[in-house]
Amino acid sequence: MPKKLKLDHKEIMQLPSRYRARLINNVSGFKSANLIGTISSEGSENLAIFNSVVHIGASPPYLGFVLRPTTVERHTYDNLKLTGYFTINQVNEGIHREAHMTSGKYERDVSEFEACALTPEYIDGFPAPFVAESHIRIGLSFEEEQVLACNGTILVVGKVEFLELPSHAVEEDGHVSLTSVETVAICGLENYFTAKNLGRYAYYEPGKDLKSL
Amino acid sequence: MPKKLKLDHKEIMQLPSRYRARLINNVSGFKSANLIGTISSEGSENLAIFNSVVHIGASPPYLGFVLRPTTVERHTYDNLKLTGYFTINQVNEGIHREAHMTSGKYERDVSEFEACALTPEYIDGFPAPFVAESHIRIGLSFEEEQVLACNGTILVVGKVEFLELPSHAVEEDGHVSLTSVETVAICGLENYFTAKNLGRYAYYEPGKDLKSL
Repeated sequence: MPKKLKLDHKEIMQLPSRYRARLINNVSGFKSANLIGTISSEGSENLAIFNSVVHIGASPPYLGFVLRPTTVERHTYDNLKLTGYFTINQVNEGIHREAHMTSGKYERDVSEFEACALTPEYIDGFPAPFVAESHIRIGLSFEEEQVLACNGTILVVGKVEFLELPSHAVEEDGHVSLTSVETVAICGLENYFTAKNLGRYAYYEPGKDLKSL
Repeated sequence: MPKKLKLDHKEIMQLPSRYRARLINNVSGFKSANLIGTISSEGSENLAIFNSVVHIGASPPYLGFVLRPTTVERHTYDNLKLTGYFTINQVNEGIHREAHMTSGKYERDVSEFEACALTPEYIDGFPAPFVAESHIRIGLSFEEEQVLACNGTILVVGKVEFLELPSHAVEEDGHVSLTSVETVAICGLENYFTAKNLGRYAYYEPGKDLKSL
């Protein structure tokens, strides 16, 4: 039996603040790494990495992300509320360092695209900048937000208005091969991973054998 | 230049329903794989896999997850609302097949623990079952919920009341090595992955060099 670290709520609250933040950010597992792109009404482009994008629905297609009320994330929030649009750009192995650099604190009029050597791209008149170096890119319109009573964290939901990805990554049944475009996973806010496929399984019917796909 | 699949909202809505569901579930990247454990007031244990656990806050520690109004997820919801408690158990390589099997449709009085060969464990009187085979286990009390206007999806937020993980997985600064406990990542609802570390980076200060940790 390996030795266990066991903590109750009171003990967690007594941990040093940064230790606790790392621990709580890490224990819920691997997350997606996505760059969210926006533009201000004055034309200042903004780009920030988020590990909190979640699936909200497929019909119609909605994605959401969780936003803490910090300086970095505030620029993203202000822009998307004002313009009504934002982009989600998957982080791949080749740009994961640049993506991490967007998490630094920049002044409002500094473009993280420029500061982090990533290229803004406008596609088909969509009113928010995409990341040229990203392989899977999603354009969304602001749909709704929910402000949490417990700590002011905001869930932002967008409707998918545009989607672009390499044809070779999409299988016949709509499944997307994330490894074929070198998508990375993230743990917390600082640790990046590549992934190796373990298995893909059919929808499971109780009492039957588990089928690999 | 690889060939691209490019779709607008209207074209996405015209895709066959299962193709669209896979596509939209996959494009936002890798997700965490967690088993959520609950118990009904009659003592029926329930266990279901979720790929939507997100970090809500560290002080106090809150985690959330997104719940669609389906039969499978409804049992989890009803139980946690009634008892006020649930557990989040990380899926590791050794139990990823069993974890996937919990996504099947079971009758309300069937225990997915039993049906999927996973062991319920009660720790220190916490009023919801943990998964004995999971290495990182979190006990939470229901804190709040937000129902989305766009499609009735629910964000459930819990306060971390209990946390247990192997001591060897926790580094001096609170960082958790997910690879040391063979945590898996998931794409959509059917594709499981192991992870390989690409790099860990310090908090980035604009204008400075990026520091590896």
